[in-house]
Amino acid sequence: MSEDRKIIVAAAQLGPIQLETPREKVLQRMLKLLDDASSQGVRLVTFPELALTTFFPRHVLTDEAELAKFFEPESEGEPKALRASPNLKPLFDKAQGLGIDFAVGYAERWTDAAGKKTDYNTMIYYSAIEDSIISKYRKVHLPGSYEPFNRPNFSEQLEKRYFTPGDLGFPAFRAPGLVNDAAKADSKDSTPGKGDPILGMLICNDRRWPEAWRCYGLQGVELVLEGYNTTGYAPQNRGDEEEQYDLAVFHHRLSCQAGSYQNACFSINTAKAGVEDGGLLIAGSVIVAPSGKIVAESKTRDDELVVAEIDLCDCARYKNGVFNFAKHRRVEHYSPIVNQVGAVEIPLLSSK
Amino acid sequence: MSEDRKIIVAAAQLGPIQLETPREKVLQRMLKLLDDASSQGVRLVTFPELALTTFFPRHVLTDEAELAKFFEPESEGEPKALRASPNLKPLFDKAQGLGIDFAVGYAERWTDAAGKKTDYNTMIYYSAIEDSIISKYRKVHLPGSYEPFNRPNFSEQLEKRYFTPGDLGFPAFRAPGLVNDAAKADSKDSTPGKGDPILGMLICNDRRWPEAWRCYGLQGVELVLEGYNTTGYAPQNRGDEEEQYDLAVFHHRLSCQAGSYQNACFSINTAKAGVEDGGLLIAGSVIVAPSGKIVAESKTRDDELVVAEIDLCDCARYKNGVFNFAKHRRVEHYSPIVNQVGAVEIPLLSSK
Repeated sequence: MSEDRKIIVAAAQLGPIQLETPREKVLQRMLKLLDDASSQGVRLVTFPELALTTFFPRHVLTDEAELAKFFEPESEGEPKALRASPNLKPLFDKAQGLGIDFAVGYAERWTDAAGKKTDYNTMIYYSAIEDSIISKYRKVHLPGSYEPFNRPNFSEQLEKRYFTPGDLGFPAFRAPGLVNDAAKADSKDSTPGKGDPILGMLICNDRRWPEAWRCYGLQGVELVLEGYNTTGYAPQNRGDEEEQYDLAVFHHRLSCQAGSYQNACFSINTAKAGVEDGGLLIAGSVIVAPSGKIVAESKTRDDELVVAEIDLCDCARYKNGVFNFAKHRRVEHYSPIVNQVGAVEIPLLSSK
Repeated sequence: MSEDRKIIVAAAQLGPIQLETPREKVLQRMLKLLDDASSQGVRLVTFPELALTTFFPRHVLTDEAELAKFFEPESEGEPKALRASPNLKPLFDKAQGLGIDFAVGYAERWTDAAGKKTDYNTMIYYSAIEDSIISKYRKVHLPGSYEPFNRPNFSEQLEKRYFTPGDLGFPAFRAPGLVNDAAKADSKDSTPGKGDPILGMLICNDRRWPEAWRCYGLQGVELVLEGYNTTGYAPQNRGDEEEQYDLAVFHHRLSCQAGSYQNACFSINTAKAGVEDGGLLIAGSVIVAPSGKIVAESKTRDDELVVAEIDLCDCARYKNGVFNFAKHRRVEHYSPIVNQVGAVEIPLLSSK
């Protein structure tokens, strides 16, 4: 275990996963990344969004049985089902053996107590010390469209078709066993930077929305775990491949850096990268400090472990300073943020 | 007048203004910047925060008469007083003559109908075509402290002492006469990018708060005008002068770029720069596009006009795409943003 509030963490970037790639191949690649992590003393790994398969929302899938293959079934009555899923069990087992926590994104098919099924774009957090999934996040900001465009030379993005927006809000949580000073902390003392680290999860497009980061910031989050599949080139968009790719990476970095800075937290942002089913995904996995500076970044568009030692004590300088929310926020002026979904433009001036 | 929705705009960066600098000298420098602007076809100029004087909140001022000199008196009963103020009249007159709109920051001493005085850190927007101040913004996010630290080798920041947080919220407004297509617009049609441009103002520390930008974004803002006095070095802070300066510029750019991108608007961000009363202020005035990219940036730490031609039509790509608020925002999960001022950390786990 590391000293005080220092942890060695990693983004486990994945290269492309083709539609025809067998599940076992993907699992082998993920297990190898966990072994790499272990050899470097990593205690926490973040895998991408929808890490187990291709990014299937780029495809128009009309066959229900075909679509179902991408989803993990879960239900109220079977809380241990995911831990035992053949698609994930080897990953949990390996992580438990190595003493590594991880976050991973996958497609969730949830059956509630009344038998109603709902599909979510989900990320879970597995705690090795607990041998248990201790937190779940369901993607709130789904991009794309419900109806396919069905045009030639057009990249579909059908997340709004295949998923329902997350219903869990932005639930921060404490992850046990990651830092030494947790044991020292008085359980009644919840001043910043005490006790087990406060974590939160975001998925892909969520990172562009300051509201999502702020909801975690308001829970004292110290480290945000985020995974993404972000288009690097779409034929219908403006610019050639290089221009589009660079702009997409720029927007990705800007969002992760601003979110980390403005909420005084670290973040681990992990790509699925490369050419997947003919579509280009950006790489650029980054670990970002509360200063907003990038402390580690991926160098390839393939499977790659991006490692950094971070000190969660570095959050305090910003949480107690420029972003001391209690001192500086003026919520009496923020009501449009919750009272209004879309932009309501101020009226045109009457012509003079 | 420019074509369609193109406007030539400028940040009128000011070098330092010392405590002993006479008002007339400052005015002469500002008038010269307006002349420069006119010669380059500029239609809209943004001056810094507290542009008329030194950044006086760095000083502990206990003499009421001395403090009063920094403020412009205004009241309910005298709406034209500011237009006629000897500290500003030459600026308004010059701008009217040249047909240039401008935003400028100053210290406002407001007397309400009941005779109560309140001091604000304020920015106003002057419309040349109207010969009138058509909008006012009062800084919402005041940094610093109320009580001075009175320590040797310590830079004071006493905005919380000298000012009351703004009470006007984030009022976007339309500025007439700046674009050609305003006349073409049907007054019943308020789809994005039609009619007179939608503007908003922010002051310095406000730009670090995504809530402030979002409140404007939710009014369809196309261009945010922002002025700042930002410390480039404080003896009590970590790092030498170069490290501190670079980090301050990095945070400034990150905030302006993220705010512009995430709200699909241009922004003009104008510094008061250089060594003022012995304290270093960052330069780095920037004009930012809705892509988040910097389109023009100051090169000096002195008086300097930073000019760019911007096309407000460029907002639409983002307002109708990734940041189509009506399609993607999920306000049902944002309530902590208004229900909670400070961070409420999740409780410590009970020890195992």
